[in-house]
Amino acid sequence: MPGAGRAAGVRRLRPQPSEEPPAQEEDQNLLLAAAYVSDAQYNRNVPFETSPRAIRLYYFYNHWTMQVAIYFFICVDLSLALFEEPALFPLPFLATSLAEVLCLTAFFGRLVHFAKVTPQMVFWKDTKNICIMVTIVLTLIDLIIYGSLEAVNVHSVRWSRALRPVFLINFPESRQIRRTFRSIRNTLPDILYVFLLFMFSVLMFSLMALKLFGDRMPAYNFNWWYCLYFITYTIINTYIFMSVFLAVVYNNYRKHLKNEIRKLAYLKRHKMIEAFNILKVKVGTEFVVMEAQWRRLAKVVAPHISSPHLELLLRISDEGQKGHVDKVNFLRLADLLNIQVVTINIRRHPLEDWMPRVYRSSASLLVQRMVQHRIFVWVYDVIILINAIFIALDERNPFISYAEWLFLSLYIIEILLKLYTYEPRAYFGRRQFWNWFDTLIIIAALVATVANTTIQSARKYNSQQILDIVLILRILRLLRIIVSIQRFRVIVTTLINIGPTILTFGGLVLVVYYVFAIIGMEAFHGKVRFSDPNFTSPDALVCGNPALKDSAFARDRYCKNNFNDLASSFIVLMELTVVNQWHILAGGFALVTHQAAKLYFIGFHIVVVILIVNIFIAFILEAFFVAYSLEKSEVETAIEKKIQELGVGIQEEEMQDGKLVDNVDAKDSGFSGDDGDNKRKDLKGLYFRIASKKYRTVDALLQQMFESEIAPEEEGPSLDEILNFSPGDLWKMMTIWNIQHDVKKFTPHIQMRKPGETTHGYKTKCSVQHVGPPHSCLWLLHARTAE
Amino acid sequence: MPGAGRAAGVRRLRPQPSEEPPAQEEDQNLLLAAAYVSDAQYNRNVPFETSPRAIRLYYFYNHWTMQVAIYFFICVDLSLALFEEPALFPLPFLATSLAEVLCLTAFFGRLVHFAKVTPQMVFWKDTKNICIMVTIVLTLIDLIIYGSLEAVNVHSVRWSRALRPVFLINFPESRQIRRTFRSIRNTLPDILYVFLLFMFSVLMFSLMALKLFGDRMPAYNFNWWYCLYFITYTIINTYIFMSVFLAVVYNNYRKHLKNEIRKLAYLKRHKMIEAFNILKVKVGTEFVVMEAQWRRLAKVVAPHISSPHLELLLRISDEGQKGHVDKVNFLRLADLLNIQVVTINIRRHPLEDWMPRVYRSSASLLVQRMVQHRIFVWVYDVIILINAIFIALDERNPFISYAEWLFLSLYIIEILLKLYTYEPRAYFGRRQFWNWFDTLIIIAALVATVANTTIQSARKYNSQQILDIVLILRILRLLRIIVSIQRFRVIVTTLINIGPTILTFGGLVLVVYYVFAIIGMEAFHGKVRFSDPNFTSPDALVCGNPALKDSAFARDRYCKNNFNDLASSFIVLMELTVVNQWHILAGGFALVTHQAAKLYFIGFHIVVVILIVNIFIAFILEAFFVAYSLEKSEVETAIEKKIQELGVGIQEEEMQDGKLVDNVDAKDSGFSGDDGDNKRKDLKGLYFRIASKKYRTVDALLQQMFESEIAPEEEGPSLDEILNFSPGDLWKMMTIWNIQHDVKKFTPHIQMRKPGETTHGYKTKCSVQHVGPPHSCLWLLHARTAE
Repeated sequence: MPGAGRAAGVRRLRPQPSEEPPAQEEDQNLLLAAAYVSDAQYNRNVPFETSPRAIRLYYFYNHWTMQVAIYFFICVDLSLALFEEPALFPLPFLATSLAEVLCLTAFFGRLVHFAKVTPQMVFWKDTKNICIMVTIVLTLIDLIIYGSLEAVNVHSVRWSRALRPVFLINFPESRQIRRTFRSIRNTLPDILYVFLLFMFSVLMFSLMALKLFGDRMPAYNFNWWYCLYFITYTIINTYIFMSVFLAVVYNNYRKHLKNEIRKLAYLKRHKMIEAFNILKVKVGTEFVVMEAQWRRLAKVVAPHISSPHLELLLRISDEGQKGHVDKVNFLRLADLLNIQVVTINIRRHPLEDWMPRVYRSSASLLVQRMVQHRIFVWVYDVIILINAIFIALDERNPFISYAEWLFLSLYIIEILLKLYTYEPRAYFGRRQFWNWFDTLIIIAALVATVANTTIQSARKYNSQQILDIVLILRILRLLRIIVSIQRFRVIVTTLINIGPTILTFGGLVLVVYYVFAIIGMEAFHGKVRFSDPNFTSPDALVCGNPALKDSAFARDRYCKNNFNDLASSFIVLMELTVVNQWHILAGGFALVTHQAAKLYFIGFHIVVVILIVNIFIAFILEAFFVAYSLEKSEVETAIEKKIQELGVGIQEEEMQDGKLVDNVDAKDSGFSGDDGDNKRKDLKGLYFRIASKKYRTVDALLQQMFESEIAPEEEGPSLDEILNFSPGDLWKMMTIWNIQHDVKKFTPHIQMRKPGETTHGYKTKCSVQHVGPPHSCLWLLHARTAE
Repeated sequence: MPGAGRAAGVRRLRPQPSEEPPAQEEDQNLLLAAAYVSDAQYNRNVPFETSPRAIRLYYFYNHWTMQVAIYFFICVDLSLALFEEPALFPLPFLATSLAEVLCLTAFFGRLVHFAKVTPQMVFWKDTKNICIMVTIVLTLIDLIIYGSLEAVNVHSVRWSRALRPVFLINFPESRQIRRTFRSIRNTLPDILYVFLLFMFSVLMFSLMALKLFGDRMPAYNFNWWYCLYFITYTIINTYIFMSVFLAVVYNNYRKHLKNEIRKLAYLKRHKMIEAFNILKVKVGTEFVVMEAQWRRLAKVVAPHISSPHLELLLRISDEGQKGHVDKVNFLRLADLLNIQVVTINIRRHPLEDWMPRVYRSSASLLVQRMVQHRIFVWVYDVIILINAIFIALDERNPFISYAEWLFLSLYIIEILLKLYTYEPRAYFGRRQFWNWFDTLIIIAALVATVANTTIQSARKYNSQQILDIVLILRILRLLRIIVSIQRFRVIVTTLINIGPTILTFGGLVLVVYYVFAIIGMEAFHGKVRFSDPNFTSPDALVCGNPALKDSAFARDRYCKNNFNDLASSFIVLMELTVVNQWHILAGGFALVTHQAAKLYFIGFHIVVVILIVNIFIAFILEAFFVAYSLEKSEVETAIEKKIQELGVGIQEEEMQDGKLVDNVDAKDSGFSGDDGDNKRKDLKGLYFRIASKKYRTVDALLQQMFESEIAPEEEGPSLDEILNFSPGDLWKMMTIWNIQHDVKKFTPHIQMRKPGETTHGYKTKCSVQHVGPPHSCLWLLHARTAE
């Protein structure tokens, strides 16, 4: 953290352009502005105090070490369940409880830190903080009670363990998980009625089945009643109701997603305006930020940015090179910083430096040209395909195992050839995922195969683990085929794009699984035991519980599906998620406890299969629709244009087709911009490109879409207003605000048209454009007013 | 059909307003105009000749008897598979082949009829017609070959049977099924790549499973490798890929749906303009259609419309009562006719006529008020719930079976009370679905219960069939609960709304099932036999085929899942659709024939489970989104406004809450419109209401949405242009057309704005508004130009 000034109590000092503020105060302002810009960049929405001390604490609060630390403690706290009774790796109660107290202290510390940063009012109004505090207190109470009962040898229930995911959800960093939870909560009322109707339908069919087939079940080998019943049931309850569930969930998801994105966009705009107001000086008639200030700000916000990259951004922000950045361009800063621009240092191949004559010889050039040729890629694709066939064949055939050596050497030759042709540092660039992937897989396979051969020749025995690893590596190698086919690459890129958000779902599923696992362990642990893998003893045949005698659960040997430790519980829950033999599992656990146990399984099914899986599908649907409409955002286009203008751009295709070196050679000779000033010097020998579209997640895209609709001079509703409304209110608020705004600002425009036409346009457009909730109309209303 | 003139060769004669055309010619024009309007109303897109003879033939072609006849022959043709070897009900080859030839003759006749109606060029360019002709010829060839081979006792394959659904698809009436097929065809290229990637992923996992678990399968009782493998496989191949399939299918569905709807809307507009041009006369400065002409036209198009309804429509179309209808209002005629307005004749209760004093006595009034009260409904809801509990209980308990009599009499009392209170003809109105439902269920239950009791007392034995029917009727009665709960009613109404289109899917599934069933019967019939319901003989244990010895197919007793007749084939395909033990079925049939048989099962899975089921889900999603944004269309609102203005409206809620009589009484006294002319007389004693929202399907709604965007004076692209482009071309064409149109027509408008703003508005709006394909932008572009 750069040294911050100490002028206490300085609150949003706006320096007068005429008199220079003292250096310390200026530093202070810079830090404050940088905090705003950084928050805008990362979409952090923590209202913080603007006193110098609070700002410093805020920087510390956002520091990556603090974040890592808190996630570490959350992990520790959650994983305690592995060591507590019923444990996978048992530890004494004292050890786990001490670890838990340590975690709680860390959480409390984080909370106190947060309280110092944020205004008191905001802190106490935030339910997240209250939740954390209540959970800490409850956990402590539970620990004390359980500990004292344990001391007198009374076993009780560690109920507070189910509350642990509260920490994961409620820290400000888990915004995405919270959003998904909000999504679920908002969907509940709508889905409840569909669910009740569904239950009603199931009830009707159950009654019918009970009456029609109840007492003649053994005799019903496919009579006609049964067929008709089966078909009707399937169509109504599987196809129609499940689709309706999806429709309701998706509709809500879309509605709330858009609202949240809109809120985020306004908040971002606000923060950028705050930052601008702090740094602005008056030049001529307009307020601007001076170039020097801008540079310092960017350096504070993104300390690791390379100076050529910074120059590039400055040239984009200050297009006319007037020495200052105007408001519109300043507001784009957060977005500019978010776009990953890769700086490529063009260096000559080390071999060329080392032995230029050999490397430039005609034989060497031929090799290089060969490797760069498309046919080289095709040949290796064919090799991979043949390899796939060999893998599928029986490996005990000695010919096949020799072939494996052949393939391995072919792959190694490929890598060596590529390293010979391309500059190694470019080949192993930070973004060259597939090159890394290839090389690592091949090296690992080589090492493992050699290790296996050594062991085999030394001890005449194959290590199964190593063989497994070799096999998996061999098969993973086939993934390279995907990269060679353009259409596959598009789909895979989309999937990789939405990868981070899929991880959010991972977090969500973890929370739900954890809570259900803890409850399941308390309710069912020890009821079902897996003892004998060969099921020879009579006890093993009933899973150690006589209640399971003659049950489908025991007959199908599901004994290992138990709640005896966290890992087993997770596996059972996974099986329940894919609805694999749900009835047998639920039936078995109901037999060993009580019929009411089925409620647990039904509850899990509703939460996970009906809600979360549908939200997941809704998310993938939306992500793919966004991906289909993927166009470059304005900001990105601006950067790319600038890169092209400066003649320092490299097309991504060229990188991928392996034409990098050729290309660079060609460009190097022609590289002379027409602006011979000192900035050009910095860019010399460097190339830029936008780091593919990987960064652009659904959120980022939607946000950009919405932002391009906010007129640059528009400031949106006030910060407090935005922060204090729920997604539901947002709509109303926005509408009112938009209309006021409209009337206030665009009166001349409206008067140019026929009276009432604005409303009309709003109405009909909505009805055409969107086969969607009323919320989508808002976008249009907004679009119209922003015209 | 009204007598048509014979003036041959009259082509789109436009009567000059000054000189009256001869009566015969006028009739001719009216018929032509009516044909256009009727086509617009029903969205028929058959280009027909305009000669008087062709028009008469066209009327005949569209007559309902002809349509019923053609569907009858299609049904006969399809159901022949039930009687042909392998038959459910065997008939000699001569009989079935004669029936088939008869059907083919009918199809050919229909085609000849169509050829007489439509211009020759259009007829021969239409692939539908070519398809039908080729299929007829192929079927005849197959019949001859099969018949002659049969005569010399050589068995061959009746391959042409798989072509029979061609007739169902290719007659113009099956537009919806064809559209769904087009939807599938359009989705294929996109889905192919996802599918290949999916197959690649499955291949990778298979290879891994083969290598990792292949030779140690018995030992793997849930080891960790397996868990990891299982979880990864499920997440990638079940959740992610299946969602991607849905996303791709849905995206395409939406894109093509919108294109088709837009095309339909333009075609409709064209037809209405044609009709207007035929009938128009010049009054003052504008062309209009005279009231008398309008009336005659409406009577020809909708002969069964009641004259008060016609008056209502005229009042809406001729708002100023100027005696003529202008172009804008004329163009709405097709939509007006499509809106179902229910005419309610208010009559007094028959009992009131018969014995007024008793019916009007205070006791009788009390009963009536009681029945109309909300508590009456609630009481019966509670009774139904109690009934549900009783049904679930054991019926052999004599107390329960007496209770059933009690419930039955309670329901009968309810119906009698309602009939006493409400006017019976209103109670059993055409739209009173639930009243009909209630009464029929109760009467049927009464009849069945009485019949059962009679049999029981006479022969001391329960007829199982009758008991089953009684049980089902009893359970169906519970459906009434849904009507009482508002939120349920909304969902059910939506489901009923989309019911007709779900039937389209039924048609689609029928076609696919039929083709697969025919192929399946040719390939697998007789290979698996179900002989002995108790599986006692060794032959029955292997389903009559030694190849199935020790197979999972025989072990799980799937012998009845065979392709030995059409019905069994359909059941097997149904099971394959819900992916019920897919592997066992596919494995079994591969064992009895050849491993290649699995291709049949995989093909079916791809077509039905991956394509059709996803299109079905996409359709339900879209339908629900439309339902959520359900607003009244302009035309409907206009009708409702008029109905209210005239004071002859009845709210639907009032009808449902049973307040009809009260309401009518109250209104009757106050019924005196301020326009005392002769038209008012027609409306006296009548009430109207818009017949709920049932009619409004997704298509109708989308079409209305798009139509409201077409400016009244706009004529769209030319008819030939619209007809000759594919959905893909449409987009390009429209864009070009719109832009030309834009420049030509709205130049002043554009010049009022800053230059380039139109393009800008188009661009940014697109990116905000739609997270969708570029096509959706068009709507906006269009919306802008139409402003």
